[in-house]
Amino acid sequence: MISGTDTANAAGNPAAAAETGAAIMRSAAQLAQHTEAPGMMTRTYLTDAHHAAAALLAQWMTEAGMNVRRDAAGNVIGRYEGLTPNAPALLTGSHFDTVRNGGWYDGNLGIILPIACIARWHREGRRFPHAIEVIGFAEEEGVRFKATLLGSRAIAGTFDYSVLERRDDAGISMREAIAAAGFDAAALPAAAHARDAVLAFVEVHIEQGPVLLDEGLPVGVVTAISGATRFMVRATGLAGHAGTVPMGLRRDAAMTAAEIGLYIERRCSGTPGLVGTVGVLEVPNGAANVVPGNAVFTIDIRAEQDAVRQAAVADVQREMQAIAARRQVHLDINQTHDAASVPCAPWLQAQFAQAVAGLGMPLRHLPSGAGHDAMAIAALTDVAMLFVRCGNGGISHHPDETMTAGDAQAAADVFSRFVEHFQPQ
Amino acid sequence: MISGTDTANAAGNPAAAAETGAAIMRSAAQLAQHTEAPGMMTRTYLTDAHHAAAALLAQWMTEAGMNVRRDAAGNVIGRYEGLTPNAPALLTGSHFDTVRNGGWYDGNLGIILPIACIARWHREGRRFPHAIEVIGFAEEEGVRFKATLLGSRAIAGTFDYSVLERRDDAGISMREAIAAAGFDAAALPAAAHARDAVLAFVEVHIEQGPVLLDEGLPVGVVTAISGATRFMVRATGLAGHAGTVPMGLRRDAAMTAAEIGLYIERRCSGTPGLVGTVGVLEVPNGAANVVPGNAVFTIDIRAEQDAVRQAAVADVQREMQAIAARRQVHLDINQTHDAASVPCAPWLQAQFAQAVAGLGMPLRHLPSGAGHDAMAIAALTDVAMLFVRCGNGGISHHPDETMTAGDAQAAADVFSRFVEHFQPQ
Repeated sequence: MISGTDTANAAGNPAAAAETGAAIMRSAAQLAQHTEAPGMMTRTYLTDAHHAAAALLAQWMTEAGMNVRRDAAGNVIGRYEGLTPNAPALLTGSHFDTVRNGGWYDGNLGIILPIACIARWHREGRRFPHAIEVIGFAEEEGVRFKATLLGSRAIAGTFDYSVLERRDDAGISMREAIAAAGFDAAALPAAAHARDAVLAFVEVHIEQGPVLLDEGLPVGVVTAISGATRFMVRATGLAGHAGTVPMGLRRDAAMTAAEIGLYIERRCSGTPGLVGTVGVLEVPNGAANVVPGNAVFTIDIRAEQDAVRQAAVADVQREMQAIAARRQVHLDINQTHDAASVPCAPWLQAQFAQAVAGLGMPLRHLPSGAGHDAMAIAALTDVAMLFVRCGNGGISHHPDETMTAGDAQAAADVFSRFVEHFQPQ
Repeated sequence: MISGTDTANAAGNPAAAAETGAAIMRSAAQLAQHTEAPGMMTRTYLTDAHHAAAALLAQWMTEAGMNVRRDAAGNVIGRYEGLTPNAPALLTGSHFDTVRNGGWYDGNLGIILPIACIARWHREGRRFPHAIEVIGFAEEEGVRFKATLLGSRAIAGTFDYSVLERRDDAGISMREAIAAAGFDAAALPAAAHARDAVLAFVEVHIEQGPVLLDEGLPVGVVTAISGATRFMVRATGLAGHAGTVPMGLRRDAAMTAAEIGLYIERRCSGTPGLVGTVGVLEVPNGAANVVPGNAVFTIDIRAEQDAVRQAAVADVQREMQAIAARRQVHLDINQTHDAASVPCAPWLQAQFAQAVAGLGMPLRHLPSGAGHDAMAIAALTDVAMLFVRCGNGGISHHPDETMTAGDAQAAADVFSRFVEHFQPQ
């Protein structure tokens, strides 16, 4: 269980503070024992490992003084009542499913950390004008059914019921998996929270990137979850013998892709919050002595601000065509994804900023380039996020994902101060 | 059979000339019937199709007035005696094996065309001070045993006997295949020609590239078979989330490869006879939302002149390291091939040039970026090559490989005039 034994405000008691950070780390390790594959962290939607993790979270929530329930999506919801019963709730939480062979903190931290803070308030007998609900979202990563954000969409009332018919690799439909877990897919609409019952949603999450690490900061306040546009591109030039086709007569598909990739890199550099990536790049059946006639590559462009992203996408599209035309290479361009940015509410960002500054920590705002549950919950209420520094170069979705007890503590301190000073809009 | 029915000098009798070109095309089609795979042109070393092709070549050589023998490597050698018996011979020929699903003319043309010319001289009762030997080289492409130029190396006396133990995909060793074909591997040394018995070697071959097509020329005189240097490179950077790693903190292996590729392209452009190719380019397990941590690519640099190639290779190596260092990406660079240029003898080039000019055709010199049997025979005697225009953008090693009867005729005219005016050095 989460055993935050400190009885004073953590920020005012360094020994107790260190203890809470260490307790969060121990809980993350304990939760990580529930995995589908021993030796790695794999916990997908409604598997045995997933059920066991849910049960452990529910136990910790109960021990922290919360009333616990599960909804039809499998979300684990712990409610810590306010000074008056049925007060509107500040929502917090994150997901407890993982990618295959992922890390211990992605998602899980955002559930464990609030439970640890509430456990302390519970021991102190401390309550607030608002209730607090900690939600362990049952599904965010989309591994099992290739559909993401299932838990948060159920809570937000934006669940796409058509995905119930999707089948996993074993041929089991999501509807069947939900029934086998003892839930009722017909009750999914009831999982949606009423707008007037919630005040806001805040999510604590590891950064999954290197910015805070690079700048030596334990936490950062998220400005927005970046919008993203993706393309899959097939370039078709003309294959030829590497020895016999002079440079000037070539229609090299790989060098077309290379030039486009470097343009994307250049165009997306220097603008804060804008990133552009060629993640897939391949010459199908390429051979050392053949001028590539074909190349396949992806483009992923994200930005905090939609206008910034759209301007970059437009420039990339224009430049791609110019490069291809000059090289006499044909491009088949398919847009595979296009999602707008989800801004974090300024009033919530401001209260996180006050908590950070109030603890004497440097204040850093940064966008989230990755998607998170907050993205779905934004359809229900205002959202904000607190990022926690990742170790190992910022790596995540990987066994090398790490964070420190000190940073867990710093984040718990900021979260606690945020909640204790929370002023609904 | 080759039925060149013209009785006058082809160049002086347009109708007869057209007839010879057409006959070469018919012979190519007839020879192409001997394939391992119906519907495609596949003829690898010492298969049934290969034996059948050898028998047909031998028949045509005999009908053209040549004495025919086969050596221990399976080469088919037809000798057209000169005015005096046992005169030193002008050697010509090319290979009759093919790549899998290749074309009809690669190699084969260089055997069929001289047979057609000799058939005419035979009908005319015409002989020269020198003998002519037409060699159908049994193996050049290296498909069956992953060893190239077997036929020409046997003739040149440079056969690598260690390859006799290599096994094909069915587990049959080359030594066994040679024995099964009725040849004696122990007699391979005797296949080497005596230097004082040969005057020179000239090879007629399709260009396998687009230069003559692009310039509207039927034939070209080869200056050299380019030297080549190849590398296999593995770039290792740091994988990261495409959304969360800012551009300035990336160590992108794919963009490192892209920048190196474009440098190679730029460095090798503008210098005649120099080409540089990245034929393999791949991000292993790449995903659209992951900054590439690894990339694999090949480099192939060729030039007519070794100094030109070596200077380019040195620049590429230096620039690769500079690009990788700037991007904090590690490169593992393995040189996989390094072969010097094989120059065509100036005195033979000059006599080919006189033949081209004497027929009123535009004279074009060009290097051969691909390897050919002449490369191996250069160890025995001076060599030269005559290139014939390819259709379809210059494509070869492919079913779309084409050439025209008109160009076959033009090449036969040049070859005939070259032989008729041949002056040994």
